Amino acid sequence: MNSNYDLAWLRYDKVSADGAGREQSLALQQLQGYLSNIVMADGVSSQVFRTAIQELTKGIGSLTGEQPSLSHTVEADRFLAVGTLEDTGNLGHLPLLNDSLEAAEAARLGEEGYVIREVAREGKDYIVIAGRTEKGLLYGVFHFLRLLQTGQASEALDLVEAPKYQLRMVNQWDNMDGSIERGYAGQSVFYQDNKIVSDLTRVRQYARMLASVGINGIAINNVNVHEVETKLITPELLPDVARVADVFRDYGIRLYLSVNFAAPLELGGTSTADPLEPVVQEWWKERAADIYRYIADFGGFLVKADSENRPGPFTYGRDHADGANMLAEALEPYGGLVLWRCFVYDCHQDWRDRKTDRARAAYDHFKPLDGRFKDNVILQIKNGPMDFQVREPVSPLFGAMKQTNQMLEFQITQEYTGQQRHVCYLIPQWKEVLEFDTLCQGEGSKVKDIVAGQVHPYKYSGITAVSSIGDDYNWTGHYLAQSNLYGYGRLLWNPELSAEEIAEEWTNMTFGDDQAVVNTILDILMESWPTYENYTSPLGVGWMVVPHYHYGPDVDGYEYSKWGTYHFADRDGIGVDRTQATGTGYSAQYVGANAALYDSLETCPDELLLFFHHVPYTHVLKSGKTVIQHIYDTHFAGVEQVEQWIVRWDALEKDKLDQQRYTHVKERLLEQLESAKHWRDVINTYFYRKSGIQDQHNRVIY
Amino acid sequence: MNSNYDLAWLRYDKVSADGAGREQSLALQQLQGYLSNIVMADGVSSQVFRTAIQELTKGIGSLTGEQPSLSHTVEADRFLAVGTLEDTGNLGHLPLLNDSLEAAEAARLGEEGYVIREVAREGKDYIVIAGRTEKGLLYGVFHFLRLLQTGQASEALDLVEAPKYQLRMVNQWDNMDGSIERGYAGQSVFYQDNKIVSDLTRVRQYARMLASVGINGIAINNVNVHEVETKLITPELLPDVARVADVFRDYGIRLYLSVNFAAPLELGGTSTADPLEPVVQEWWKERAADIYRYIADFGGFLVKADSENRPGPFTYGRDHADGANMLAEALEPYGGLVLWRCFVYDCHQDWRDRKTDRARAAYDHFKPLDGRFKDNVILQIKNGPMDFQVREPVSPLFGAMKQTNQMLEFQITQEYTGQQRHVCYLIPQWKEVLEFDTLCQGEGSKVKDIVAGQVHPYKYSGITAVSSIGDDYNWTGHYLAQSNLYGYGRLLWNPELSAEEIAEEWTNMTFGDDQAVVNTILDILMESWPTYENYTSPLGVGWMVVPHYHYGPDVDGYEYSKWGTYHFADRDGIGVDRTQATGTGYSAQYVGANAALYDSLETCPDELLLFFHHVPYTHVLKSGKTVIQHIYDTHFAGVEQVEQWIVRWDALEKDKLDQQRYTHVKERLLEQLESAKHWRDVINTYFYRKSGIQDQHNRVIY
Repeated sequence: MNSNYDLAWLRYDKVSADGAGREQSLALQQLQGYLSNIVMADGVSSQVFRTAIQELTKGIGSLTGEQPSLSHTVEADRFLAVGTLEDTGNLGHLPLLNDSLEAAEAARLGEEGYVIREVAREGKDYIVIAGRTEKGLLYGVFHFLRLLQTGQASEALDLVEAPKYQLRMVNQWDNMDGSIERGYAGQSVFYQDNKIVSDLTRVRQYARMLASVGINGIAINNVNVHEVETKLITPELLPDVARVADVFRDYGIRLYLSVNFAAPLELGGTSTADPLEPVVQEWWKERAADIYRYIADFGGFLVKADSENRPGPFTYGRDHADGANMLAEALEPYGGLVLWRCFVYDCHQDWRDRKTDRARAAYDHFKPLDGRFKDNVILQIKNGPMDFQVREPVSPLFGAMKQTNQMLEFQITQEYTGQQRHVCYLIPQWKEVLEFDTLCQGEGSKVKDIVAGQVHPYKYSGITAVSSIGDDYNWTGHYLAQSNLYGYGRLLWNPELSAEEIAEEWTNMTFGDDQAVVNTILDILMESWPTYENYTSPLGVGWMVVPHYHYGPDVDGYEYSKWGTYHFADRDGIGVDRTQATGTGYSAQYVGANAALYDSLETCPDELLLFFHHVPYTHVLKSGKTVIQHIYDTHFAGVEQVEQWIVRWDALEKDKLDQQRYTHVKERLLEQLESAKHWRDVINTYFYRKSGIQDQHNRVIY
Repeated sequence: MNSNYDLAWLRYDKVSADGAGREQSLALQQLQGYLSNIVMADGVSSQVFRTAIQELTKGIGSLTGEQPSLSHTVEADRFLAVGTLEDTGNLGHLPLLNDSLEAAEAARLGEEGYVIREVAREGKDYIVIAGRTEKGLLYGVFHFLRLLQTGQASEALDLVEAPKYQLRMVNQWDNMDGSIERGYAGQSVFYQDNKIVSDLTRVRQYARMLASVGINGIAINNVNVHEVETKLITPELLPDVARVADVFRDYGIRLYLSVNFAAPLELGGTSTADPLEPVVQEWWKERAADIYRYIADFGGFLVKADSENRPGPFTYGRDHADGANMLAEALEPYGGLVLWRCFVYDCHQDWRDRKTDRARAAYDHFKPLDGRFKDNVILQIKNGPMDFQVREPVSPLFGAMKQTNQMLEFQITQEYTGQQRHVCYLIPQWKEVLEFDTLCQGEGSKVKDIVAGQVHPYKYSGITAVSSIGDDYNWTGHYLAQSNLYGYGRLLWNPELSAEEIAEEWTNMTFGDDQAVVNTILDILMESWPTYENYTSPLGVGWMVVPHYHYGPDVDGYEYSKWGTYHFADRDGIGVDRTQATGTGYSAQYVGANAALYDSLETCPDELLLFFHHVPYTHVLKSGKTVIQHIYDTHFAGVEQVEQWIVRWDALEKDKLDQQRYTHVKERLLEQLESAKHWRDVINTYFYRKSGIQDQHNRVIY
């Protein structure tokens, strides 16, 4: 494992006094008086509290070049007052913290919120950073440092923040052999040679990065649980798992494990994994007891069952509720959760059979089970009905189950969106998902509120995502792909943030505030998702990638396969008929007006047209173009966009950026350009050969 | 590694006296008197001689149930007289051996030929089995045993045999981690965990099998020489290589190694692998000296250089002659050979570029170098210009170099022909290659004679092939695929044997002589290559397989890739224009009438039409069918043929065949049927979607 690493958005580069055009400088000067002295509660022993203080002193020290003093008493006139809302008694005569917050505000903070506020009282002028709990404080500290870093901090600070989502998780698809399923940034930072690594430095740094954007849960092994990983829940490996849990606990992050549903069978204890067999139930209860002996705050199990050849309850004629409840019962005494994935479909479909529709599968499997799940089970639902394509509709399962906890699964790792060799800033895509109004309880039943438990009163809910990091120096393969990890956390804290705001925060923290640099990066990020869509699979039809690898074009790669992912292109037209009258009826899984919207060729949005309809190449889109001309135009445009990025990158003054990152991004952009050209030419040639229709502009098609 | 194995065609099942319908019985009865006594020379110490005697006694013992007696003196009236032509002096008063052969015959035997002849002399009646050398004797013994096994032996035997080819080799594509590149029969029998296996039992059995069909050389590691394998030529691994060489030597087989052209660089001795650098030349000379210290009869090096990203002389601005000659010089003092592969082409081709033609590559690279190679270099040329497709023209390089030794490379492992999950008996294909008349020295310049050094006077020549065996119990994955390994050896001994004769020999030796069983297997074998061609890639265009795996259909799998393997199908037509007037000019690499034959749409044989011409789907073939109807018809027919095999297999009386092999073949046939249907439906659907032309018989196309 590579032990060197980049500091990502936690660089805290020292801000020079002469500013050099940096806004931070001014902000820092204004706050200089406060930053030298930190006053905090005495006798606090919580590790998370210590982490918060460490981060604050380290951050300020790094940004200003001066270490702040730490004290338990108020002496200076200006200072930072740092603590939790229970700390008052220890801070001498000033009711520093509790008094800084109204009761109603305090309630709003919940477990994880915080206040950052300037207070002038009894001749003292100070900035309060306080959470009700030490986790809230930690998040407040990272927020305060971000303000300093991005030059947004000034006197008259007054912020009260709490996260929208209860569970804000990442899933590592890391295997213990050190490989990462769908990983594009090197080997695992967690595992090597079928062991948990002994040096957890990079794991700790990752925990820091996650905590800095508010992540509070992590499942540390691949949902496809192979032989060695099956043993992670046993006393053989739990001491090592506990070491990892300790690291994440320091940063307020709970550890989860992916489990193998057939574990009782495979680890030799039982002759079955039937969830209704007492011996199996007992086996899992014993494992839960083992786990909590080692990790008292263990989060729970993440489960991929009866999915893509993984074992599950179907083997025994049981259903998903039987399976999930059995695990939930084992975890219940300890407050553990079962995160049960809904990515269940027939992966041995016959391509000749046009009636079976993979898009229908999650809804068809799970909707009828509503009400059957225990309340410490959460269904984990991918954002779309297929599999993290560049464009899909939102899964109709969201909100369709009133009595079953739901959480949303995104994919930060860019499996189908350029594998961190292409820039593809995904926050705009995720925001579209979150803003989708399911209509499940009438208008205003948005996905963002459903998975916050605010549409149906779910006991547990939240958002999770497949992580993108590995042991590459820069964590994410493509440096700019750090923005997706950063943005993911920020979006989960506050989904009202715009994609632009998030991108700007990240760019400022990571690259400073040179306007040319920032604007160039911002524009590239904001244009990147539509650009990637332009030169890849058109109009929502998806796939067209090289099978298994999922990088690069192969239009027919999945067309005659068992995976249920087809485009049905022939010499006349293309698209999947998912309408009620003549197709698979998938459109009817949506509620009311949404069902009608997608079902009708007249109203279906262009960008999802081929997901819902099979149309001739000559069909005219709402844009006024034919489908075939749209394909040609977008594919030429996509490549031109990448070319323009390179022109802009080349135009940057090189001393505004360190050479390493400048060169790295340039290399990736050149690679993206080559790949984009390949996509353009393959897609255009494929459809030209099939349709025989000339490009209106007579551009080169091979 | 699986240590259990099948005896393949060396079963020597005991023939019961009551015959049970077996022809062998009669033959054995006739010879009974001879088989009990073996008279052989005294004081012979050669291991190959001992092997021959062991095989003879073991074979006779097994077939008859009685161990023959071995003596050095003639006592009985009937006996087998066994030896080499130099043995006379030791056989008492009877000039048993030398006198049995005319001088002219003896000359014809060469190093490896033998005589099997009944002799009546001085009141004794005996059968002579003699080679001029002990290798010839070993081959004679295997021939004699085959005659017994197949019921063809009787009194009045009179055979003089010698092999057509000097080098009769196999190449193992085995890696030291135990994997086999393009292996479809389990793991390597040579390597495990990056070591040569300690138990060489299966290697010895393999040597026996090879010797029984006359193979006399083997390269024991993959032509793609990876890191560990690079060291096979160093004293670190040579002791183990020598153990393997010992085993093969016992069976008259010389050992060769595949070498990494960059070995001097990678093993740390030099800073270059430039073949003109004295330090590099010296390095290779030292390695040769090392090798011959351990293996005095080492065969030589097999080299894949400047091919598919393997290192080679191009890196240093040198050519293939420079590279090969440097290695040849190192081996020359010891009589070693360099087998230099001609599988050299641009594997980073741009699919948009229709001018570059991979088919041209070998000829274009090597033909200009004629006369530049040392005479212990042999160019190893694949049978076709592409890569072991189900149908290709013969490589135009054969015979095109008068002053350069050439050998032919076949592929026994069924990479592109069903991967030993489908039956595909390849002898008919190979015979077509051997019988191809290149016209290079006028009519009668057949490939079979070129690679025997009988057209141009090559010092070294022969045939090699990629082996098909692994540690599967039955060696070859599909039991019936043993026939290809068997037949390969037989064909190299005598290319005048018909494919049917060879199939019948193998079937009799392997399955006995029940007529229903034999006829069923023979029919399946003889129909299998055309059947496989029927349901896969049509009319010589090739490929259309899943990339990398090369199993199953993916029509466009290689269409937009860098590998130079395209079909150019659009809505109007298909095929590669390799003509001189409008195409790549590949057809001009053939001589005279052959060039004209392929170049003209009128004369080009149907089965190669799309290899040489791009034609509309409505083009009418010599068969009278259109191209599109031919595609539909052959694909339906191919599946029906497999269905008929299954009907015939089911009709066999089960007690005529052991249950294990009966069931195994049945399972593979069912798998082949499913795969054939998949091929049929994908290919038909692909071309129907593209052409829009209905099947004349309105069969189901999806």
